[in-house]
Amino acid sequence: MLLHGYFRSAASWRVRIAFNLKGIKIDGVSHHLRRGDQHLPAFLQLNPQGFVPALELDDGTVLTQSLAIMAWLDEKHPLPALLPSDAITRAKVRAFALVLAADTHPLQNLAVLAKLRALGLDEPKVQAWAADVNARGLAVCEQLAGQGSFAFGEAPGLADICLVPQLGNARRFGVDVTRFPRLLAIEAQCNALDAFREAAPANQPDAE
Amino acid sequence: MLLHGYFRSAASWRVRIAFNLKGIKIDGVSHHLRRGDQHLPAFLQLNPQGFVPALELDDGTVLTQSLAIMAWLDEKHPLPALLPSDAITRAKVRAFALVLAADTHPLQNLAVLAKLRALGLDEPKVQAWAADVNARGLAVCEQLAGQGSFAFGEAPGLADICLVPQLGNARRFGVDVTRFPRLLAIEAQCNALDAFREAAPANQPDAE
Repeated sequence: MLLHGYFRSAASWRVRIAFNLKGIKIDGVSHHLRRGDQHLPAFLQLNPQGFVPALELDDGTVLTQSLAIMAWLDEKHPLPALLPSDAITRAKVRAFALVLAADTHPLQNLAVLAKLRALGLDEPKVQAWAADVNARGLAVCEQLAGQGSFAFGEAPGLADICLVPQLGNARRFGVDVTRFPRLLAIEAQCNALDAFREAAPANQPDAE
Repeated sequence: MLLHGYFRSAASWRVRIAFNLKGIKIDGVSHHLRRGDQHLPAFLQLNPQGFVPALELDDGTVLTQSLAIMAWLDEKHPLPALLPSDAITRAKVRAFALVLAADTHPLQNLAVLAKLRALGLDEPKVQAWAADVNARGLAVCEQLAGQGSFAFGEAPGLADICLVPQLGNARRFGVDVTRFPRLLAIEAQCNALDAFREAAPANQPDAE
């Protein structure tokens, strides 16, 4: 099993955390997104979307989209669970994750920022766009977070997995994250765990 | 149970199809998105994100995010299933759905287009942005779709539920959808079913 990713990609980061939480070691292949390696024919054959992560299974099957990969992982290796046992809390965890993974991150990825530049927006406006998108998503999550040491309860799960990389992105774009004290408290709990620390971009072999 | 939505919202449309496929009648409350009713304090109390759909349960619990609502619905009312029984195909269905629900639709919703206008882009550029986003997402899905009458197999499910509203959006933004013959064939199968036809925007009481 091979995880195609990139050290700084928030979606790859999520999947690394998930594998670590499951206690599964997985080999990684780095694709240099800033250089555009995700658009090379060999990569597009793995994932026609040209996005990381892509999980290549031993039989050659390729799974894409971080949330789909993590749902598969959670079904295949149920413990420790990435979702809570209660159906309503599960729905709230998924909603929290989607605010970040659907309504925040895709609006500030490399391709979108490149498109804004191509439309003639100057760099401060592009950076402000990315900062605003991050700040809005996190502000919603600050309100949606549940009770407990982690986002929902006393164990880390899907919501926390999506939160930590998004806070990383927010800081890169200069967002004042001190506006989100509940989220920062959750992040501190997460970063006390090896599973989160070892998945951080700075700790990847392809980190620059 | 009340579904807060808007006739033209693709995410509300998805949830309407899902309830119809399950054979569950649900009352709807319309929030006029073009007039900005989703930003009213009463609505923000239901969903701090200010997005539809929001599903209000009888005990007052509110579930948000269309994919999270549908996952809850599928757990609560398992038949007919929205996901296939095989784990790998399930992962592929989820990835297909996320290409549209995470990487396509959120990039062309009302809020994003308003933001592009506020940044000084003229209307043709804003419309071209939305068309491009739709065309890219659908082009990926044209390649990701599996075998069968529907997107993955002989029964409609989550992939089809996300596809049909996105094709509707693509047409509104002037995308030449004849480039996607496989997707159009799937759509034709879907639209032969009451569950899909009755969920269409034109058939909602708030349609304009």
